[in-house]
Amino acid sequence: MKYPNGIRKSTPFKKEDSKNKKINFANRGMSFESEINATNEYYLSHGIAVIHKKPTPIQIVKVDYPRRSRAKIVEAYFKQASTTDFSGVYKGRYIDFEAKETNQLTTFPMKNFHEHQIRHMENVRNQNGISFVLFHFSKLKETYYLDSIYLISYYDSTDGKKSIPLSYIREHGYLIEMNQIPRIPYLKIINNLYLGGHHNE
Amino acid sequence: MKYPNGIRKSTPFKKEDSKNKKINFANRGMSFESEINATNEYYLSHGIAVIHKKPTPIQIVKVDYPRRSRAKIVEAYFKQASTTDFSGVYKGRYIDFEAKETNQLTTFPMKNFHEHQIRHMENVRNQNGISFVLFHFSKLKETYYLDSIYLISYYDSTDGKKSIPLSYIREHGYLIEMNQIPRIPYLKIINNLYLGGHHNE
Repeated sequence: MKYPNGIRKSTPFKKEDSKNKKINFANRGMSFESEINATNEYYLSHGIAVIHKKPTPIQIVKVDYPRRSRAKIVEAYFKQASTTDFSGVYKGRYIDFEAKETNQLTTFPMKNFHEHQIRHMENVRNQNGISFVLFHFSKLKETYYLDSIYLISYYDSTDGKKSIPLSYIREHGYLIEMNQIPRIPYLKIINNLYLGGHHNE
Repeated sequence: MKYPNGIRKSTPFKKEDSKNKKINFANRGMSFESEINATNEYYLSHGIAVIHKKPTPIQIVKVDYPRRSRAKIVEAYFKQASTTDFSGVYKGRYIDFEAKETNQLTTFPMKNFHEHQIRHMENVRNQNGISFVLFHFSKLKETYYLDSIYLISYYDSTDGKKSIPLSYIREHGYLIEMNQIPRIPYLKIINNLYLGGHHNE
């Protein structure tokens, strides 16, 4: 399942992606986004944090109202996201992040980010929100937390035209250990970076 | 424009609602949701807060990929929202709210809220987020801020089956003065309730 703008996101449509899952996501058939969603469900059900994926933005053009049944959208298009994919609240703090995945081995293509997403991250930082990116290198089976300040500065210094080297992500980011439950415990990093490391998650 | 579940929300589809706007929203042709969006744009462009409306959740069933053009969604349905409409960050705090409008004069129909929206508000409160509802009584031209704790307790004490009297909203909520710019300055209330009233917005 490819997005119109070339970004591969995970499982946007539950009914149609079973094939792609097998092709793209060797990791026990669960896409990166599904793993983040499962992590967020774990956090939610354990009263740890309230973080949700935003719905995919759609431009609706035509809706039919068949009698005795619910409204049916018959023409619509994907819109470019103007913000990031995930947001929520953790111990009163605003959490905002984007999750990206690649099959590349040594770099992450910057075209996966749009100018207004970068500016959104900047705006969130200015409001003292916690803003970051989770990078998943599917072939390496490695997931990194990168504070958005490093993404923004890289983006701005290259005009958004150069891929980010994995070495840059490793230098400025944090490898996330993939647990059993929750799968991607990114709040651990936030505890250490923002909350003094004294909290359980 | 009516939502399948009977909620009237404002301007979900830009291309089709010009007629409804005239019918439903006497207030200089701008829907309540549009006024909130305009308020949020003001807050954003002035560096005051980063608050966005979440996209409408859609269940996508079928997508066509016509050659040389972008992906076209040809069958999709509205999904019930599992969270609230608006969220973002203001001075580091997580902001989360629902905006509702009615033509009623003395009550607000509770069927406009779903059980999981109420539980979402509760979850946000438990994480120390700022959670509330903006009620617009279009015929009265009055808009109220009601902290979600009062919505939750009313909902729970009536099993979600009784309309909320306007008198209850007036007793526990705050009337928002409709300014010129921004139109619905709800952050003023948040300043007073949560931030000691010392901040400009």
